Amino acid sequence: MKKNTLILVIAILGISFMTYMMLSIGERKQEQAILNTAPIIKAEGIETRSDKWADAYPHQYDTWKQTAESNEIEDMVKKYPQLAILWAGYGFSKDYNAPRGHANALISNRSTLRTGAPTGPNDGPMPMACWACKSPDVPRLMQEHGELEYFTGKWARAGDEIVNPIGCGDCHSSQDAQLTITRPYLKRGLDAIGMTEDKITYQDMRSLACAQCHSEYYFKKTPYTDKDGKDQIAAVVTFPWAKGLAAEDMEEYYNEIEFKDWTNKMSKAPMLKAQHPGYEIFTTGVHFKRGLACADCHMPYTQKGAIKFSSHKIQKPLNDIANTCLTCHKQSEKEFKDIVQEKLDRKDQLNVIAMDNLAAAHLTAKKAWEVGATDAEMAPVLATIRSAQWLWDYSIASHGSFFHAPGETLRLLGVAGSKAQEARITLAGILANYGVINYQIPDISTKELAQQVAGVPFEKLVKAKLDFKKGLMQEWITDAKEDGRLTSTFVEDLPVKSAYPQN
Amino acid sequence: MKKNTLILVIAILGISFMTYMMLSIGERKQEQAILNTAPIIKAEGIETRSDKWADAYPHQYDTWKQTAESNEIEDMVKKYPQLAILWAGYGFSKDYNAPRGHANALISNRSTLRTGAPTGPNDGPMPMACWACKSPDVPRLMQEHGELEYFTGKWARAGDEIVNPIGCGDCHSSQDAQLTITRPYLKRGLDAIGMTEDKITYQDMRSLACAQCHSEYYFKKTPYTDKDGKDQIAAVVTFPWAKGLAAEDMEEYYNEIEFKDWTNKMSKAPMLKAQHPGYEIFTTGVHFKRGLACADCHMPYTQKGAIKFSSHKIQKPLNDIANTCLTCHKQSEKEFKDIVQEKLDRKDQLNVIAMDNLAAAHLTAKKAWEVGATDAEMAPVLATIRSAQWLWDYSIASHGSFFHAPGETLRLLGVAGSKAQEARITLAGILANYGVINYQIPDISTKELAQQVAGVPFEKLVKAKLDFKKGLMQEWITDAKEDGRLTSTFVEDLPVKSAYPQN
Repeated sequence: MKKNTLILVIAILGISFMTYMMLSIGERKQEQAILNTAPIIKAEGIETRSDKWADAYPHQYDTWKQTAESNEIEDMVKKYPQLAILWAGYGFSKDYNAPRGHANALISNRSTLRTGAPTGPNDGPMPMACWACKSPDVPRLMQEHGELEYFTGKWARAGDEIVNPIGCGDCHSSQDAQLTITRPYLKRGLDAIGMTEDKITYQDMRSLACAQCHSEYYFKKTPYTDKDGKDQIAAVVTFPWAKGLAAEDMEEYYNEIEFKDWTNKMSKAPMLKAQHPGYEIFTTGVHFKRGLACADCHMPYTQKGAIKFSSHKIQKPLNDIANTCLTCHKQSEKEFKDIVQEKLDRKDQLNVIAMDNLAAAHLTAKKAWEVGATDAEMAPVLATIRSAQWLWDYSIASHGSFFHAPGETLRLLGVAGSKAQEARITLAGILANYGVINYQIPDISTKELAQQVAGVPFEKLVKAKLDFKKGLMQEWITDAKEDGRLTSTFVEDLPVKSAYPQN
Repeated sequence: MKKNTLILVIAILGISFMTYMMLSIGERKQEQAILNTAPIIKAEGIETRSDKWADAYPHQYDTWKQTAESNEIEDMVKKYPQLAILWAGYGFSKDYNAPRGHANALISNRSTLRTGAPTGPNDGPMPMACWACKSPDVPRLMQEHGELEYFTGKWARAGDEIVNPIGCGDCHSSQDAQLTITRPYLKRGLDAIGMTEDKITYQDMRSLACAQCHSEYYFKKTPYTDKDGKDQIAAVVTFPWAKGLAAEDMEEYYNEIEFKDWTNKMSKAPMLKAQHPGYEIFTTGVHFKRGLACADCHMPYTQKGAIKFSSHKIQKPLNDIANTCLTCHKQSEKEFKDIVQEKLDRKDQLNVIAMDNLAAAHLTAKKAWEVGATDAEMAPVLATIRSAQWLWDYSIASHGSFFHAPGETLRLLGVAGSKAQEARITLAGILANYGVINYQIPDISTKELAQQVAGVPFEKLVKAKLDFKKGLMQEWITDAKEDGRLTSTFVEDLPVKSAYPQN
């Protein structure tokens, strides 16, 4: 090849590459420009189908889809069979798994044994409130029909309406894509602690979008008259924040209104179930106090070419230490992980102590009832058990509480365990008065044994569930697809997994 | 005044000021130069009199003297009367105060009821080992007579020899002023964990100088033949580090050699007393893991003109937050203090729970013995109480453990409280078998009541102590002054305070 030809070829290659790069940069700039114009996804109301946001927000949508990867089932009742006793008589004793990614929220909700096997729209066992955190279809229905109307009736009533898992429309306005609070109950909770709308900053919103669901709540029975003039009772999700966000504050709130979630089937104690007070315990920790928001660690900024965006693969920061923790904690990944592991081990140790003692307390109380203990004898013990279990549940029910507030978690686990043992000491006295000394609780060392003791009809529940999944649940999805409420094959094709056999 | 005169005056003033400044800078430079030459304080052995170091190290000496300011008595048995029960039959039930500054170490040691009221050199109750941490005269005597010889005999044997409180000679070589380990038992402890001399860095030394005393130890009975051919038994300070520095490691060490410090007078449990495992618990915390040494926070660098030196006013960093904590923790003093207070509150809560349950366990065990419980019944309970109290004591006996390792402290307090309650549950069963149900422990809500229950003859102890202070103790000081072992009026004039009345 002649020298000149070579130079020409190189020049052409160079020009081609530069042209490609310019075009590419131009494209990126265009993309960024689109983002900056805050495109309207839907003129009014809430666009619940995340796939409809994908054109305007491709990177956010792609990373959101990746939340589906977190789909392994970690059967917590198998890991800690004591749980079946702690929650005896309540749904969680049937089935309770570690949390999975946002995209899996709805299939988890439909699939868990806790939501039962309804056969029609008026069938239970759960109320409408049980969808509240699972889908942007929830605030859509509230806007369309009213909040009280939404919270009326059984879970199965809206199975064909609530079909898109936690997605864009849960946290972003469909009109301008800004962060927004779609759940009215969070607004009321914030009002109760004096955090009115005018005080809320953008950084606050980067936590409050999450706090809509990652919070403690109860279903407040609320009578009203519907549009047909009929008396109804709504079970309205309500945040028990009026006295503060600490475990003891909420306990005082619940005690004052004499609220109980259920009665433990073993001890007959009037129990509280902590949902997932993640936001609340986060506010007791040092990350919050230093001004961090949930999104800082769970949705780190990510660069793709010219585009900088917040990752919507919401997950535990430990999966991506280099881009989360280590941006502040200047140490090696190994050093960091070792310290975290040590902290986790401490939590696990106190957690097991608390659970063991709570289970023993419930079962010993059961024995006390059996041998003739009176209400007067049992009342103070049951109050202690209730308090112990609440503090325990608050401290670990929210996802990752230990990272959010390690000191507060250890304190609460310590106090919870101590109260459970205090109950056991009193029960030893009561039992002795009825001639029972050194009572040994039954063997609850496996999930099967513990569920048997707790009276969970596991196989029956599974059979009914499988029937529901083949029947009514399929109808819901078919209806939703036909009516255009569900348009994404991605959502439809998510794999179904469970802690029980699928056939 | 004429204009020229004014200019002249200003010029003269200016020149005078500059001359003064230059002289002053020269003086400082000279001082720094002296420091840099590492002057020999004493050609051989240990210069125990800190005032003899003052000429070469005036700033260090001045700040060391300021440790005397920390001299208030905080009566811990008054604050937590439970302690009298936890330590029943042991010195600490008589008198136990919060720590004071280094300069007060010796007067505290002589003044506490724990060291009793000896009337002559062969009198008890304590052994020579009880001086071990209190004075540079200790390593001096070891060098002069041998370590085993030092650890032989009663505390009163060397009252006239050990007269200089913790000072320069405890941590610095008198020959070159470098940091040095004067206590052979630390060297043996470090050997046991594989930290041989060649591996020790300067930064390590800035903690190990402190670890000589701020560590856990026991008195190991060691037979030997003295220079006169006589059989002797030394009670040698020994660090139980061979299995590691964590609470459970040391517990295993002690259990393996079936060691006990004493038998609790209430429960008859074979007890361990944690001394002050400050270094050990520090190694479980994040400050240590990030490479900090004790001196970084307790002896911050200070500037006086051209001289930069490490403050020897060793104290809690919270007294000087701006120059200690806040050099790394970038926040306001108010924010920082609030977070610390919250952490302290958590520790206090779990601490009180653990102490209350330990006291109840000891007293309930006492009752069980009284009603006829057998050794076989009691042995496992007593082992549990021993373990519980050890974990509790390890977690809080060292000064400021909670700042050194907040997570580990909470974990240990949680486990300790739980074990104490476990013992109480078992004891409830044992008592019921002997017909005692719902046993209520006696009132121990004040120091007086608790000491009465624990059988502490407080007034008798005080009377004897005051006699000792007027008698033998004065002789010691007179002798030491006459022989030149004590030369500082500063040391002599330190105010004597105590938790008991001084007359």
